[in-house]
Amino acid sequence: MKKIIVIGASGTIGKGIVEQLGLRHEVITVGRNSGQFQVKIEDPASVEALFKQVGKVDGVVVAAGDLHFGPLAEMTAEQFYVGLHSKLMGQVNVALAAQKYLNDGGSITLTSGSVSENPIRYGANASTVNRAVEGFVTGAAVEMPRGLRINVISPTLVDESVEAYGPYFYGMETVPVKRVALAYSRSVEGAENGKNYRVW
Amino acid sequence: MKKIIVIGASGTIGKGIVEQLGLRHEVITVGRNSGQFQVKIEDPASVEALFKQVGKVDGVVVAAGDLHFGPLAEMTAEQFYVGLHSKLMGQVNVALAAQKYLNDGGSITLTSGSVSENPIRYGANASTVNRAVEGFVTGAAVEMPRGLRINVISPTLVDESVEAYGPYFYGMETVPVKRVALAYSRSVEGAENGKNYRVW
Ligand SMILES: NC(=O)c1ccc[n+]([C@@H]2O[C@H](COP(=O)([O-])OP(=O)(O)OC[C@H]3O[C@@H](n4cnc5c(N)ncnc54)[C@H](OP(=O)(O)O)[C@@H]3O)[C@@H](O)[C@H]2O)c1
Ligand SMILES: NC(=O)c1ccc[n+]([C@@H]2O[C@H](COP(=O)([O-])OP(=O)(O)OC[C@H]3O[C@@H](n4cnc5c(N)ncnc54)[C@H](OP(=O)(O)O)[C@@H]3O)[C@@H](O)[C@H]2O)c1
Repeated sequence: MKKIIVIGASGTIGKGIVEQLGLRHEVITVGRNSGQFQVKIEDPASVEALFKQVGKVDGVVVAAGDLHFGPLAEMTAEQFYVGLHSKLMGQVNVALAAQKYLNDGGSITLTSGSVSENPIRYGANASTVNRAVEGFVTGAAVEMPRGLRINVISPTLVDESVEAYGPYFYGMETVPVKRVALAYSRSVEGAENGKNYRVW
Repeated sequence: MKKIIVIGASGTIGKGIVEQLGLRHEVITVGRNSGQFQVKIEDPASVEALFKQVGKVDGVVVAAGDLHFGPLAEMTAEQFYVGLHSKLMGQVNVALAAQKYLNDGGSITLTSGSVSENPIRYGANASTVNRAVEGFVTGAAVEMPRGLRINVISPTLVDESVEAYGPYFYGMETVPVKRVALAYSRSVEGAENGKNYRVW
């Protein structure tokens, strides 16, 4: 049994991860406002404080982070920074802190999204940020100390989010959260490092 | 004959681009301090001012932007932002402005680097930023109006930079700038959109 932090535990994807990992492990639920602990992933000090509070763990999973969706023709630098500050640097902040607080052999699992490789209208920020998270995992994996591992899950739109985001994704197959959650389990419980698990 | 802005024209790679494109086109050289015009790509207002000064063009090439190199174990958010502000947002700022100032059928060509896919020690920021630039091109390409195109060149270390960066890249084949410059010509003068030209 491992002790695993799930940041974004109350979310559409997070709930599935907690259910799947909870079958075999102790899960610490974390959210911006919800969960057993709170964190603002954009803020390195808040992330550091979370790890200080929770103490040593065997796994850290992040399924959180905002993106900007909107037409490229009108996009501003400020809008573009939404995804850089939140979904990209938020996850980088967690990974940079986690490498210090994880037990030997522990794992970090981040979240990108299929728009990284399958572009959609209004998705330039999402393609950029998701691909950046994947690049970070590629780069960080070769420097992981003490048998730590870092991977990324790239889910397509999940069935449970079709009502919210469906029109952006017409024509793309969606998958149940249950299937996405398996990829997180594979990252946490498997042996691979630097892997991008595409769920689409 | 096209009118093409090259930002980073005085650089190791920029000089090769200017030489190659200069064979057939009018090249406007731009740098931070050097060149016919100056710009600070990190600053959207400075980028906007550049395009206002130069007027309508047929192509915009960027071969500029800083990264942070250093051990992951000690990396701070502040260091990580070096690459996000400079090489990533710098190039995004140029592309967002260029879509308004390019003539119909014009092109935008950005620069990533092989570390996006071939990680090296101390290169987590480079892998992230280079992959992000590639993701931006993937995402932006599907929203280009008026027959505009956007591509990215991913060079490996060039022969001319071995003295400066060689130790990071032991074991990797390097290529002459002349060969990298051909890829920029292919992006500017070819017909593809959303393409990642790997030169390695
Ligand atoms: N849903 C999809 O179909 C889909 C597909 C591909 C990728 N993704 C990606 O997966 C991630 C999660 O998506 P989701 O749809 O599950 O999101 P969601 O339902 O909106 O849930 C977000 C979760 O993250 C937490 N959170 C939000 N901002 C935070 C912050 N700044 N610091 C710490 N925690 C924060 C929220 O906590 P509170 O509830 O306390 O606010 C919540 O637990 C996102 O990055 C998204 O881009 C989603
Ligand atoms: N060299 C390689 O082997 C290699 C390989 C792969 C990728 N790359 C990438 O290619 C790009 C260019 O590399 P390089 O080695 O040719 O660089 P370089 O020799 O240092 O030249 C940089 C050029 O960019 C300009 N510049 C720098 N910062 C700028 C800013 N903030 N705003 C506007 N212009 C700016 C400089 O102008 P001033 O001279 O006026 O300062 C100079 O013209 C970089 O993004 C690098 O990561 C290089």
